Amino acid sequence: MTLNRIILGVEYQGTGYQGWQTQPGGNTVQDTLELALAKFVRAEVHTMCAGRTDAGVHAIEQVVHFDTVLQRELYSWVNGVNAFLPPNIAVRWARQISVDAQDQSAFHARFSAFSRTYHYLLYNANIRSPLWADKAGWFFRPLHLELMQQGAEYLVGEHDFTVFRAAGCQAKSPFKHMYEVKIRRQDDLIVFTLRANAFLHHMVRNIVGSLIFVGMQKRDPVWIQELMETRDRSLAAPTFMPDGLYLAKIGYDEKWDLPSVNGENLPYGLHF
Amino acid sequence: MTLNRIILGVEYQGTGYQGWQTQPGGNTVQDTLELALAKFVRAEVHTMCAGRTDAGVHAIEQVVHFDTVLQRELYSWVNGVNAFLPPNIAVRWARQISVDAQDQSAFHARFSAFSRTYHYLLYNANIRSPLWADKAGWFFRPLHLELMQQGAEYLVGEHDFTVFRAAGCQAKSPFKHMYEVKIRRQDDLIVFTLRANAFLHHMVRNIVGSLIFVGMQKRDPVWIQELMETRDRSLAAPTFMPDGLYLAKIGYDEKWDLPSVNGENLPYGLHF
Repeated sequence: MTLNRIILGVEYQGTGYQGWQTQPGGNTVQDTLELALAKFVRAEVHTMCAGRTDAGVHAIEQVVHFDTVLQRELYSWVNGVNAFLPPNIAVRWARQISVDAQDQSAFHARFSAFSRTYHYLLYNANIRSPLWADKAGWFFRPLHLELMQQGAEYLVGEHDFTVFRAAGCQAKSPFKHMYEVKIRRQDDLIVFTLRANAFLHHMVRNIVGSLIFVGMQKRDPVWIQELMETRDRSLAAPTFMPDGLYLAKIGYDEKWDLPSVNGENLPYGLHF
Repeated sequence: MTLNRIILGVEYQGTGYQGWQTQPGGNTVQDTLELALAKFVRAEVHTMCAGRTDAGVHAIEQVVHFDTVLQRELYSWVNGVNAFLPPNIAVRWARQISVDAQDQSAFHARFSAFSRTYHYLLYNANIRSPLWADKAGWFFRPLHLELMQQGAEYLVGEHDFTVFRAAGCQAKSPFKHMYEVKIRRQDDLIVFTLRANAFLHHMVRNIVGSLIFVGMQKRDPVWIQELMETRDRSLAAPTFMPDGLYLAKIGYDEKWDLPSVNGENLPYGLHF
């Protein structure tokens, strides 16, 4: 049977939601999106996403797909669905391919993705900033950017990231390939950008917490490497707050012809 | 009697508040700030602000003052009061002067101010952006920046701004002096910056609405001048949404030695 596989780029503000994934309570981004899709399609819709996000975590470009027999113009999949969504969630673009439901080689939001990019925004100043509340983490002591960047270099490459993994993480393997870690500052804002083939549960927030230990000179940069070797979660820094975390970009093969991202997909017009 | 006059720089996210000014319901920024001050001072505190903001309007730097017999270090007026404030309001700095309660020449948050600067952030793209929800207005049709800037030039100088004045406005005179109107774009974001000696109620949002009529080429730039001459509110564009409005900066004489603002005080690390 040939179906239409709809691929959507979805942006959301995670504040107030219990994360991406469907839960009995129903207060999740997936539940809210699937409810809007069901109203548009007039049938139940099950979506598959590229990267599940936790409570309070935002997405600049989450990618989801689902199959339907419904045939609509692409702009309808954007504007029509958005009419059923609250202000803190929106479909930003849509693509459509024809698939045989049995075809394992067809585009799949999760399995076709070869990389995920996250940004973590950290407001680093003496006094907290209400305008950054819910949008950025806050740390009030001075941080040494170069030392954090040195520590971050140990993360690049293929590693066992068990030490940065949450207890409930469902990933099959703790080995992930980190392609890049960038740490940049603009005035009082520090932006951590991490790109890997995939991330373990809480991995970005645990890494940011540990890099902050390095930045405040509580630990040397090489501690990051030592930590990874211990594989003991209790030795790493506490999980940092979700407020500053943004799923920014999912990497797919060009053959899928998805809309290309404008630069680094930083939020709020930030650019370096 | 000599009192301590405390001057505070206050930042807040206006979303969810019924504006600055005290109301019976109590869900205002002033009520929330005065409650926190009362807890810190252990006595009732009445604040005076430089510019009252409406429901949903934000402040990067609101300035308030109040008198007290309490003697505290300046950092305590910041950190001590912030401990009693919610995440969406914070004191950013404090200054203190000694005043005779009868002295009319002493610093006064409202009467000593010679200018107010507001920014209006407008997200201008086809599809709404959830990350800008509550933080920027949204307009989906293309806008012609140069035409809006031409229209804005008619606003500069001393004018009768009755046409941009809300029905309930309590200002004594509709004559205000507009010092500057800047309109700039960065990608999908347009930032309107207006600086005047003072503003009438809804004046910025009414001006932005009318400039959008010019930007979408529904009206010529000179229409802004013609509008002001009619003094008829019903002829101007509807009041634009509060979400994108930020009270950014209050101008005072240097003799008061208040903290100087870092650049243009744009929110979210924006800079041009």
